[in-house]
Amino acid sequence: MRYSYINNLECPKCSKQYSAEEIQQLCSCGSPLLARYDLQSLKNDIHKEDLQSRENSLWRYHEVLPVLNEKNVKTLGEGMTPLLALERAGEELQLYKLYLKDEGLVPTGSFKARGAAVGVSKAMELGVKELAMPTNGNAGAAWSLYSAKAGIRAHVVMPLDAPEITRKEVSISGGKLYLVDGVISDAGKITAQLIKENGYFDASTLKEPYRIEGKKTMGYEIAEQFGWELPDVILYPTGGGVGLIGIYKAFLEMQELGWINGPFPRLVAVQAEGCAPIVKAYVEGKKESDFWDNSETKAFGINVPKALGDFLVLEAIYETKGCAIAVSEEEITNAQQFIAKSEGQFICPEGAATVAAADKLRESGWIGTEERVVCLNTGVGIKYPDTVDYKARYMEKIHH
Amino acid sequence: MRYSYINNLECPKCSKQYSAEEIQQLCSCGSPLLARYDLQSLKNDIHKEDLQSRENSLWRYHEVLPVLNEKNVKTLGEGMTPLLALERAGEELQLYKLYLKDEGLVPTGSFKARGAAVGVSKAMELGVKELAMPTNGNAGAAWSLYSAKAGIRAHVVMPLDAPEITRKEVSISGGKLYLVDGVISDAGKITAQLIKENGYFDASTLKEPYRIEGKKTMGYEIAEQFGWELPDVILYPTGGGVGLIGIYKAFLEMQELGWINGPFPRLVAVQAEGCAPIVKAYVEGKKESDFWDNSETKAFGINVPKALGDFLVLEAIYETKGCAIAVSEEEITNAQQFIAKSEGQFICPEGAATVAAADKLRESGWIGTEERVVCLNTGVGIKYPDTVDYKARYMEKIHH
Repeated sequence: MRYSYINNLECPKCSKQYSAEEIQQLCSCGSPLLARYDLQSLKNDIHKEDLQSRENSLWRYHEVLPVLNEKNVKTLGEGMTPLLALERAGEELQLYKLYLKDEGLVPTGSFKARGAAVGVSKAMELGVKELAMPTNGNAGAAWSLYSAKAGIRAHVVMPLDAPEITRKEVSISGGKLYLVDGVISDAGKITAQLIKENGYFDASTLKEPYRIEGKKTMGYEIAEQFGWELPDVILYPTGGGVGLIGIYKAFLEMQELGWINGPFPRLVAVQAEGCAPIVKAYVEGKKESDFWDNSETKAFGINVPKALGDFLVLEAIYETKGCAIAVSEEEITNAQQFIAKSEGQFICPEGAATVAAADKLRESGWIGTEERVVCLNTGVGIKYPDTVDYKARYMEKIHH
Repeated sequence: MRYSYINNLECPKCSKQYSAEEIQQLCSCGSPLLARYDLQSLKNDIHKEDLQSRENSLWRYHEVLPVLNEKNVKTLGEGMTPLLALERAGEELQLYKLYLKDEGLVPTGSFKARGAAVGVSKAMELGVKELAMPTNGNAGAAWSLYSAKAGIRAHVVMPLDAPEITRKEVSISGGKLYLVDGVISDAGKITAQLIKENGYFDASTLKEPYRIEGKKTMGYEIAEQFGWELPDVILYPTGGGVGLIGIYKAFLEMQELGWINGPFPRLVAVQAEGCAPIVKAYVEGKKESDFWDNSETKAFGINVPKALGDFLVLEAIYETKGCAIAVSEEEITNAQQFIAKSEGQFICPEGAATVAAADKLRESGWIGTEERVVCLNTGVGIKYPDTVDYKARYMEKIHH
């Protein structure tokens, strides 16, 4: 029994094949590469019931992850996050089967830990010593921390407006931090320059093929946590879109494994009105998105003007009969406060955007009141202190 | 089969008994009350192996928790946090079996969530509508958030120097926030005044009997995660000391249940040099501590000049042949950076204090290099941004 059933890497655009035992980046055609597994063998070797007794992390799905040797797994306990029924919030929103998957309960407080755990472990297995990447903050923090554990040197380029705490996460873990007064595409250009000059491994979103493998485990977990009966709708805050692509990939794999049946959940890409390239492409029925100029939103993780994997995001939406929807800054703030007051969860603005979107889609009738709906909260609210105010009563000391 | 095997509450000082089906605070003698369970019945009804297939939260131990009816459980997925082997750090510290239990992976990013989940659930079950408490930040944040989920109104009094993010956690969840320019004992006096004037339930540390029941689950988890073979030493950052008292209580209960054998781990209370009342009492061989004047430490959670349960903390130390030790501010900072760089974990200053203490106790020979040692990291470093600096290189945008 192999620890990983990975076969190779494949280009989803031109179908060219690549070895998974050497360092790879993009396909020669410019597309991201996707990992392919020997699912037919795995189907015979493992049954989904075998998973029950496994460790409580995303590594319970190690056969469909790319790390060949278990000793190369660098884990901080990431994965198997709570899937919570939002009873009070659901009642108010008239979504009577509303759930939130809380990705705040992972190392680094953000779902980026999933991609970093798998991406860094595989990079180490392949002999990477030094890597570079652009980030809106959380991914860079996660990659820097996991790289520290793996003994890899990380170079992280982020916009000045990224959450300040993520600078400190990079710095304290020994990563080299670069700041630029721009958006993530500006950070991307600087990263490309650093890589060209120094030969670092390019860990940019989808330019390395394994981060998505970590992210896809959200799809496996949702299926397993629902007893392999998939929900009707999954709402995902979409910047680079890797999680949404990953969840869709997980469903395709599980279908081939015979672990799930019936229609897939309708996947919804949620964006902010100030940065909605996927929504625009969806509304226009296009297969790729255009660069979104002067993008702006407090949900900083989804401030991505043009995603490399946009065509895969749109494919996942179209194939699952999903949709893409934008929400306003005010709707994000209101949803964040609403969930804190009704459910006791201080979620991040990106996660709040999915709750706001669920509300709008229920109002429009696109989501039915009895459908099973999962909102993905991609991180803790505490990483974004500036998005929240407070009121306090100042008291005098009592002397006695 | 009962959901909870609680019998009653008992005073550890004067042995007076109280009902667990009515609201209780302190014993009439002034001591905290402890929950007692029908462990003999439970021993017959449940075996520790039955736990394996249970849900992945602290509620897996529901028989030894005080909530009578499962429908009153207000959970955000707290508990069963990772117990990670620190191989690289352990090598450097010459502690070859060093572990860290990472309480950062809970709702609110702090182990205070354990006490809040159980304390708030039980308060709701007993009909509490409004509660008040003093806090160094994290406990107040957790109680406010869980209270929101339970529909309870929380009044939270905290020092101005408490981590600012915890103000926002209270406020966004609808708690009423009070700030005082002082330490937690000053917040305690204001809380007492609010309770006297308004009749709120007193949720102060150990003045309500159930927070400790949530905290004790750390002890159950450590036992279960080690396959019921207890480690040799557990280091705990000690402010109010509820976790340490709780872990000791868990060991006593598990011993009575027949779930563990042999000597208990030596429990170590770790404090900061700027606030070390338990250490002083331990060094002087006393059973209670004196108030520590002008206390100060960046590890704000352990800035507690006089703990109500000090006599229970000291008893746990003496009975397990443990000790108490203080570390300096510099040692805390160094340990925090050391763990981030060697293990990829951004732990809180309180957690870092336990690593610094382990290092000192290994150097002095009190801990042997081959002993199994558990450091408790009580929360995420990201809640304390001011304790960490960063270095960055500022880059110009590339235009092309």
